[in-house]
This record gives sequence, structure tokens and C-alpha cells, in this order.
Amino acid sequence: MIAALAGGVGGARLCAGLAAVLAPHELTVAVNTGDDFEHLGLSISPDLDSVMYTLAGRHDTARGWGLAGESWRCMEALKALSGDDWFRLGDQDLATHLHRTQRLREGRRLSEVTRELCQALGVRHTVLPMTNGLLRTRILSDAGELAFQDYFVRHRCEPRFLGTRFEGEAHPTVELLAALGSPSTQAIVICPSNPFLSIHPLLALPGTRQALASRGAVAIAVSPVVGGAAVKGPLAKMMRELGLPVSPVEIARLYQGLIDGLVIDVADAAQAPAIEALGIAVSVQHTLMGDLPRQQALAEGALGFARGLRRRDQ
Amino acid sequence: MIAALAGGVGGARLCAGLAAVLAPHELTVAVNTGDDFEHLGLSISPDLDSVMYTLAGRHDTARGWGLAGESWRCMEALKALSGDDWFRLGDQDLATHLHRTQRLREGRRLSEVTRELCQALGVRHTVLPMTNGLLRTRILSDAGELAFQDYFVRHRCEPRFLGTRFEGEAHPTVELLAALGSPSTQAIVICPSNPFLSIHPLLALPGTRQALASRGAVAIAVSPVVGGAAVKGPLAKMMRELGLPVSPVEIARLYQGLIDGLVIDVADAAQAPAIEALGIAVSVQHTLMGDLPRQQALAEGALGFARGLRRRDQ
Repeated sequence: MIAALAGGVGGARLCAGLAAVLAPHELTVAVNTGDDFEHLGLSISPDLDSVMYTLAGRHDTARGWGLAGESWRCMEALKALSGDDWFRLGDQDLATHLHRTQRLREGRRLSEVTRELCQALGVRHTVLPMTNGLLRTRILSDAGELAFQDYFVRHRCEPRFLGTRFEGEAHPTVELLAALGSPSTQAIVICPSNPFLSIHPLLALPGTRQALASRGAVAIAVSPVVGGAAVKGPLAKMMRELGLPVSPVEIARLYQGLIDGLVIDVADAAQAPAIEALGIAVSVQHTLMGDLPRQQALAEGALGFARGLRRRDQ
Repeated sequence: MIAALAGGVGGARLCAGLAAVLAPHELTVAVNTGDDFEHLGLSISPDLDSVMYTLAGRHDTARGWGLAGESWRCMEALKALSGDDWFRLGDQDLATHLHRTQRLREGRRLSEVTRELCQALGVRHTVLPMTNGLLRTRILSDAGELAFQDYFVRHRCEPRFLGTRFEGEAHPTVELLAALGSPSTQAIVICPSNPFLSIHPLLALPGTRQALASRGAVAIAVSPVVGGAAVKGPLAKMMRELGLPVSPVEIARLYQGLIDGLVIDVADAAQAPAIEALGIAVSVQHTLMGDLPRQQALAEGALGFARGLRRRDQ
């Protein structure tokens, strides 16, 4: 069994690759819900949706989020009524939020609702929210403390990033702790998601960091930094604002103690010794995943790397 | 000033005619909210929307409800996710419900939200909910007591109608009582809406029936029954199930003590004496209102009739 920890687009892409090479019972994806928020009375889980839509093959590859072939008639009408269109919701995507919101109001857990949605979308691998509770990522910035989506969407990540604060009392889902701790888990894969925004919230859940640090399984990460830039999103900007070099060495430092190995891109091969000096093994691969064959190739490469590390441990 | 009491489609059509011949400050429409309900977590006000959309010239004339040029992508996606599509919500229409729901959650009154929606839709005449509270129309039927939309939409009015029960503690909006009681109100017009489903809920609000009975202004109704049938909806079926003849005489009886005059269709001219015998004046007109010119003609005819009654009183 493979346990993947994922956030948004990059995470979703690697998960699609993993799902292409693993049977449904062999893959559990635990997804960040620190970005979740209530908007227009709807319970929105952006990262869960990115992972679900991508695993279902229904995601929009050009836009990078939401459903393919989406339309925006409700949003246009809403803009005409209220001007409130800063967070764009497609007509088809709205159905996911309406259904999720209704089921949560009926008292269902987010993990149950996610299972239902996956079933309806034809996703057969296990997709889990990191928690059924509320843990909200707050952004500390030079514009003050901002709710995640205020920073990310409304302000387009423009304020200077100073750090995060995680608000709320939440516990990891039992399925997440089981996936991290189970003897049948062969490897834990931290996907190439933004460490600050997608992985740290997950690690902020009580017991998760400890479970990862004391794991029996090998753990690897795939670097979201390639050639001095982030593949997608504000990660490089955030690292610069924190005074950190934008390099996979810094990614390795962020995960030090939690991972045995790091997959880096061929563009960063020269960084391997500095990462290995941190006690983290390195695998150099083509990590850009524009299409499913490349997602699958990276998944195979990462799993092969993890298997090799496992053998080395024994 | 003219105060109109309206329910769904028939009411909306006459209101469109009244709006075509009266200046914005001359018309206040009080609308039934007994059909309002929560669905998919949204606060839905079907009759308010029918009136607003019709006054905005945005209604779908063929379908009889909702917006013209509507699309159904969210509904289709929702059906695929959950099968829950018994109450159809168009993509553009959803924006109205999302906005209304959000504003109500923020603590706004339905009358305020309705004013905002009217403004955004370009409706300049006053449209009011009958109440800012909750008064829910429950249908007593041979299938038991049903929530309104369960009877009306889910069961397509198929159960035998035995009566109504109004649930909840609600008071008429101050604007409705003002419109009924104001010395500047020249006439009260009960639109050709279903008396049981659209007008009785309004009259069930404490003080409304008394305000109408003790009014200074003349009050008329337009018969929703034409030629032994209802123009639209289940009214004729309901009257038959109650053992009532489907005739404007019965409509006159239902409103006896509340109106001075009844507008009936040319097809029912022979019923005039029986209605006049109840102490209710009659005006015979073409009451079918398939398009705006006919809506306007009926509005002019009804207002002329009301003015004549007023002169007769003096």
C-alpha cells in the first residue's frame, strides 16, 4: 500500500500517475483541507476537488483547476446580482459544492462525503480529507493575517508571505493515521505540493508529524521546485520572501527528519550532493508532468526509488 | 397607489401588465412566500422569483417559470452525483438563490434582499414578500400531510387535495399592512393566482385578513378560473377534489367579504348575475394573458373597473 500526501494541482498530477500504476486498494491519498472555506454558504474543498477531478480524468488541464468543459452561467448571473465573483465556481463544479454542503449539514463526515463523491465520479482509489474537523490555514503577510482564499485568490498571493498559522482544533482522520502507521504501507509519498500551504497544514494536525517521523515505511517527497522556480503557484515567491533559496535543497531541509529520499528534477541534478549531505537520498528524474504518460513515468520512478530505499534499510 | 396580492405565474403576468401602465411608485406587489423552502441548503422563494423575473422581462414564457435562455449544467452534474434533481434549478436561477441565501444568513430580512434583487434585475416597482417570517403552506391530502413542494413538484399535485394548513409564526411585512391600509392606496387587486395556494397563505398572516376586510380602498380580484378550468396549475383539480364547481362564482365565494368586485372572463359572462347576487360587482373582460399587450389590456381593464367601483362608493 502507498500513502500519498497531497495538496493542489502538483499533488493531483502525481496522484493521477500513482493511480495509473497502482490498483485501487494499493493507493490512499490524504489531501490538505486547510484551504477549505465557506463561500456563498457552500462548503468548498479546493484541494480535495482537484485530486478527485484529476483522478476521475475530469479536470481542466489548461486552467489547472476545476472541471473540463466547464461553463460559468451562474457566476455571470451572480456577478450581475451582487458583484461577488472573486472566487469562480463553474456550473458543474457547483453541483459538487451543493451536494457536499447538503451532506455535511445532514451530519455526514467529510471523509464519508468524499467517498460518495469519488464513487459518483468513478474514482476507485481512496481519497481522504486530512481531517474531518476544521483546520484553517491563515496567511501571515505584510497586509496582515489573511484567510487562505483571501490571500490566494482575492489578493492573488501579492502580499509578502511571512508565514502561516493554523486555526482550529482538528484531528487527522483515522484513515490517515492508519495509512501512515500501517505495516502494510510500503511507502509514503509527499507529492510535489507547496510545503507551506499544502503539506504543513497536514503536519500541523496533532499526531501526524509524529506518525510520519516514527513510520515503519520508507518516506519520500517529490520536489515542487524545479530549476529555481516552482512548477506552479506562489511557492518560489514565498520562498524568496522568507529569504530562502528557491532550490530542492531547501525542500529537503523543510522535510528533514520526515523523509528518507527526495526526487528532484534533472535540471537540479547538481544539487544532489547537498541534499545527500542532509542524510536524504536523492533520485534524479524528469518531474514535469504535463500529461498522464509523464505523470505515470514519474510515479513509477518515485515508487522504484522508494522500493530501493526500502531494500537499503533492511 | 395600487396594491397587488400575487402568487405564481398568473399573478406575475397581471403584475407585468400593472407595471406597464403604472409608474414605479404607483404599484406595490405583495407576494406569497408560503411555497418558500430550503433545498440543497438554498433559500428558495418560487413566487417572489416568478414575479421578479416577469417584471424584469427575464422570465421564460414557454416553461412558465424560471429565467429565459436558462441552462441546466449544474442540475445535470448534481443528478450524476446524487440523483437529487426533483426540483429543477437553472444555472442562472441558482445565482438568485445563492445570493438570497447568503444575504439572509448575514441577517438581512427577505424584504431587503428582495429589494436588492429587484434593483439588480432592473425591477423598479415595489415587490414585497408577504412576510419576513416563516409561514409554510402544508398540503392536507389523501397521501397525508405534505410539504408544499413535495405536493406541487415531487408528487405533481397528484394526491387528492383536502385542504391546507399554515405552519409557523409569522407576521405580515409592515409594507404589506401599510399598502393595505394606506389612505393613498386607491385599489387592492387580488391577482388571478390560486386562492388556496397563493392567496390564502397571505390571508393567514395575522392582521392581513382584517386589514383587507376593513380597507378604505376598493378591492377587486381577477378570477383564475376561466371556462370551467384553471388557466394554469392544479386549481381546477383541487376545486373538484373539494367538491366545488370550477366556476368564477366559487372564486367570488372564496373572497366574499374581502372584495368589492370580480373580473371574470368573457367565456364566463353568464355567471355574472350569480356573482352579483353575492354582493360583488362584476367586470367581464378578456382575462387570458399570453403576452404583454394582453397583460397590459387586462391591467387597464381591471384598474378601470376598480376606479368605477370607487366612484360608485363615494
